[in-house]
Amino acid sequence: MERAINQVRSQEPLVQCLTNTVVQGLTANVLAAIGASPAMCDTPGESAEFASIAAGVLINTGTPSTEQYAGMRAAAKSADAHNTAWVLDPVAAGVLPERSKFLRKLLKYHPTCIRGNASEIMALAELGQGGRGVDSTQGVEEAIPAARALLERGVKVVAISGERDLIISKKRVTWLASGDSMLQKLVGTGCSLGAMTAAYLGARNKVSAHHAVLAAHAHVGAAAQVAMKESFGPGSFAVDWMDALHNLSAAQICELVEVKDA
Amino acid sequence: MERAINQVRSQEPLVQCLTNTVVQGLTANVLAAIGASPAMCDTPGESAEFASIAAGVLINTGTPSTEQYAGMRAAAKSADAHNTAWVLDPVAAGVLPERSKFLRKLLKYHPTCIRGNASEIMALAELGQGGRGVDSTQGVEEAIPAARALLERGVKVVAISGERDLIISKKRVTWLASGDSMLQKLVGTGCSLGAMTAAYLGARNKVSAHHAVLAAHAHVGAAAQVAMKESFGPGSFAVDWMDALHNLSAAQICELVEVKDA
Amino acid sequence: MERAINQVRSQEPLVQCLTNTVVQGLTANVLAAIGASPAMCDTPGESAEFASIAAGVLINTGTPSTEQYAGMRAAAKSADAHNTAWVLDPVAAGVLPERSKFLRKLLKYHPTCIRGNASEIMALAELGQGGRGVDSTQGVEEAIPAARALLERGVKVVAISGERDLIISKKRVTWLASGDSMLQKLVGTGCSLGAMTAAYLGARNKVSAHHAVLAAHAHVGAAAQVAMKESFGPGSFAVDWMDALHNLSAAQICELVEVKDA
Repeated sequence: MERAINQVRSQEPLVQCLTNTVVQGLTANVLAAIGASPAMCDTPGESAEFASIAAGVLINTGTPSTEQYAGMRAAAKSADAHNTAWVLDPVAAGVLPERSKFLRKLLKYHPTCIRGNASEIMALAELGQGGRGVDSTQGVEEAIPAARALLERGVKVVAISGERDLIISKKRVTWLASGDSMLQKLVGTGCSLGAMTAAYLGARNKVSAHHAVLAAHAHVGAAAQVAMKESFGPGSFAVDWMDALHNLSAAQICELVEVKDA
Repeated sequence: MERAINQVRSQEPLVQCLTNTVVQGLTANVLAAIGASPAMCDTPGESAEFASIAAGVLINTGTPSTEQYAGMRAAAKSADAHNTAWVLDPVAAGVLPERSKFLRKLLKYHPTCIRGNASEIMALAELGQGGRGVDSTQGVEEAIPAARALLERGVKVVAISGERDLIISKKRVTWLASGDSMLQKLVGTGCSLGAMTAAYLGARNKVSAHHAVLAAHAHVGAAAQVAMKESFGPGSFAVDWMDALHNLSAAQICELVEVKDA
Repeated sequence: MERAINQVRSQEPLVQCLTNTVVQGLTANVLAAIGASPAMCDTPGESAEFASIAAGVLINTGTPSTEQYAGMRAAAKSADAHNTAWVLDPVAAGVLPERSKFLRKLLKYHPTCIRGNASEIMALAELGQGGRGVDSTQGVEEAIPAARALLERGVKVVAISGERDLIISKKRVTWLASGDSMLQKLVGTGCSLGAMTAAYLGARNKVSAHHAVLAAHAHVGAAAQVAMKESFGPGSFAVDWMDALHNLSAAQICELVEVKDA
């Protein structure tokens, strides 16, 4: 995990984000803070070409427009064809029919990693009860069969966010305890984690995809733990979290979190 | 007013925002900070359905695209049909003809509350002198006839922002003294107030619409007063304002502001 | 240079920004912090009319949609026709063919100032080696012939950002040493500088275009130097930079930077 963190900082991977307009600014700053190079290139005329040169790609469906949908399809197809690592963050899968349908179609382009909450993962695998996609009604464990179904379809790693995060690949299941509930109060921390996951996967060369995804999650959580000690509310938490993402050493991150293979 | 503030925190109302891209991030964080749950769902294919499940809806025309215009029309119609409380923030009404026309058409869907500056309220009611929509040329008092005209058309509450804010409903007129001029230097505080107003209206069950709107305005203003004491410029003001929105108790908010029925 | 800074604060120039969605929030807040009045008006139906009433216009092609491209063309044409000062920030010129083509077409509307890194300036003038547009491969000096070629086509000032910035107009070449490398870690500082340049050009009446552009660059850099002393990472740097943009006097800015005519 330490190696994965240091690799991002030394390699400055170029990360293309096709993400929602609410969190574009935060996401770009998070990527810059951890040492990656962000590019928010999402138009249909450019996204495919960019996905062939980027180290990693994030597709996050938080606020999709017709044009962005087209850009996402083109980028996913190109990433798949060019072996660019790409992360799917299926925001609101299971909540709105049009979006769920679009998301399921993207699966044919073999996302390297899918990162979401339990409801989103279940809806994407069509193993949920549908419903409102509210995470609190479904625990991380309940989404394990859905995660395994997605792995069968060519996804390398599935990461399920919750009180503890679960990282699953075909040969390994890892629980991660890290972070702080204040992360929920800062809009876009989950979306930024998706982008960081793309950075970590894009920079890997001596690290497995499983450990790259785990390290991204640990980085976000450890920084939140540090920020929580220093801040007075969600405004100062945001500032301190960004500083900690930038400043924490790989060794400090590893000390702050708890990793347990299942 | 205290009850209204506590209700938002205990009920976590789901607030759908169709708002401008400049302030989406700030608005979402403000909603999270006050205890509401933000969703920036604004596409034509999804906005109507979402407006039927949301507790409150904000429509703010700061940077409207063709697709967002369609999404706004659909959301307003659906909110009206499903009795979802919705707030219209008529940004730049009276400044640009295309936008003014669009805004006036939305009135047929009976916004629960309209929140804007004096010029915008007057332009919306077609009682202004047109002009450039610059607020400084028109005082809050001057917009009272326009506000009353809008109430006649089915709007429950009109809130006119100015040095002192004026909250008008059919039976009640209330002046609110709160806030600080630094709020003008932080882009999106007015837009965020629109979203907070939707949250307060969406959470109300034991509070009148008039008092829900008043409480939202008091919350924004009181937090600004606290932030002003602690900050050194617009950057630190933004941080401290967000912390104060989250941390101030209902009783503290009530103590900080001045409310006067006319 | 002092005069230019004070003029922006006393005149509050209205600055229209057609810019990328990643940095709209930061850009608007930067403009408000320096005393200008931001308006992010970029739709085809409104942008031309707005460009006729604005004091300055920024066109930045960071995340162009089809609709924004149309809005940009209309705004540039209108700014040219109405003698509104406008700044072109050719983000990613030379990296993606579609964007480069669009950018070169905009030159016929005579931007008052072009601000970019060396690679972008060279690609825009079609004097680069194409390539990836990565700035580190090309020094500021190498872009001087490209800048001169753009001046021949009617541009008044070209500003090339680098470790030291170079401001070129037909009669004058000025080097500016200011800023801090942390500016690279905060996404949107360059884009915000483009908007500030439009504000400075929009407010000028007793200052040459060359000095207005120079003053905007000095303002950004001086604020970064102050912020660097007080901050602990990119999160707190962003806060302190915004405070410093607002608080520094014109005299303080001039003392902090080094200006040298070539």
